[in-house]
Amino acid sequence: MQILPTALSELIEALGALPGVGPRTAERYAYYLVRRPAHTSQKLADTLMNLHSSVKYCPKTFALIDADVELSPLYTDAKRDKQTIAVVAEPFDIMALEKTNQFKGTYHVLGGLVSPIDGIGPEQLHIRELVQRIDEDDVQEIILATNASVEGESTALYLQQQIGTRTVKVTRLARGLPIGVDLEYADQITLGRALEGRQIL
Amino acid sequence: MQILPTALSELIEALGALPGVGPRTAERYAYYLVRRPAHTSQKLADTLMNLHSSVKYCPKTFALIDADVELSPLYTDAKRDKQTIAVVAEPFDIMALEKTNQFKGTYHVLGGLVSPIDGIGPEQLHIRELVQRIDEDDVQEIILATNASVEGESTALYLQQQIGTRTVKVTRLARGLPIGVDLEYADQITLGRALEGRQIL
Repeated sequence: MQILPTALSELIEALGALPGVGPRTAERYAYYLVRRPAHTSQKLADTLMNLHSSVKYCPKTFALIDADVELSPLYTDAKRDKQTIAVVAEPFDIMALEKTNQFKGTYHVLGGLVSPIDGIGPEQLHIRELVQRIDEDDVQEIILATNASVEGESTALYLQQQIGTRTVKVTRLARGLPIGVDLEYADQITLGRALEGRQIL
Repeated sequence: MQILPTALSELIEALGALPGVGPRTAERYAYYLVRRPAHTSQKLADTLMNLHSSVKYCPKTFALIDADVELSPLYTDAKRDKQTIAVVAEPFDIMALEKTNQFKGTYHVLGGLVSPIDGIGPEQLHIRELVQRIDEDDVQEIILATNASVEGESTALYLQQQIGTRTVKVTRLARGLPIGVDLEYADQITLGRALEGRQIL
């Protein structure tokens, strides 16, 4: 016996494919959309329909950009310092750094992290293009802004080895105590890094 | 400065309208969809596009049904006992009861609960149609299967008053300790109800 209408079952299944969305959450989303006026679903459908044709990767920085522009505005903007590059794993990491309002350089998206388990080797990442940019834009500093995970650390190490031979400063985001966290709750690796990176006051 | 492509910002905004989805979750969903092949977004868009035209409310039970059928299959099925009606607040509550595999009667969806704060009075719920069904189908038992919330309880009370004058048995889902919960962690109201509803062994 089919309890739910076909269209609703299909919607629940499609929503259930989103990351971290289980059947219950998918049901909740679907039921919300059924109850709202049709134009709510319509609007979401329209944006989804046009998504892939309206978005592309910047051929220079590999950030996500509008399909009708040539390069990322974060690269072409004259106010951004092209001689400083923050290297991130994914396009959305750019958002996180931009929200700090403290970085005025440009970005380079690797498109992932080295991860032997997932079969991702360095040759699948945009590392060759990064090396090219060092020469083209006379880059002075490369900030390795990958996650503090095993994959993030090993990708940073690999990049350091690849770029280290050039006359460019390679830096890494500081590891240490996150703001607002008590010493007693910090894990030992974080605390070890905070000790290593201690600064003179 | 626009950091994200327009289509992506629009998608994040549209996804952020879903219940319980904040900006970070919406970003995660959107970015997942960008990375997947276009047909993943396309499929979701198609189901959304057709949602409202493929689904309607059953004019008898107010369950959600396929637009091309007349009545809910849970009502028309000869194996279901039309003389027993479980009254629920929302169409999705039917799913929860069906999953128990213990109910062989039919359903009646109120379309909400009495809630003065939200401006929902009894006249906005499908109560008149429920009373009609009692006569039409010679109903023997009405199971009030609304939530154990203030709104659920007061709606049940109101229904009891409306239907109580007729020769129909009106029952309510049992309140008590949920399976697997320790006595010491149960709240006092639940425990009070469990005492009230204690059963002879």
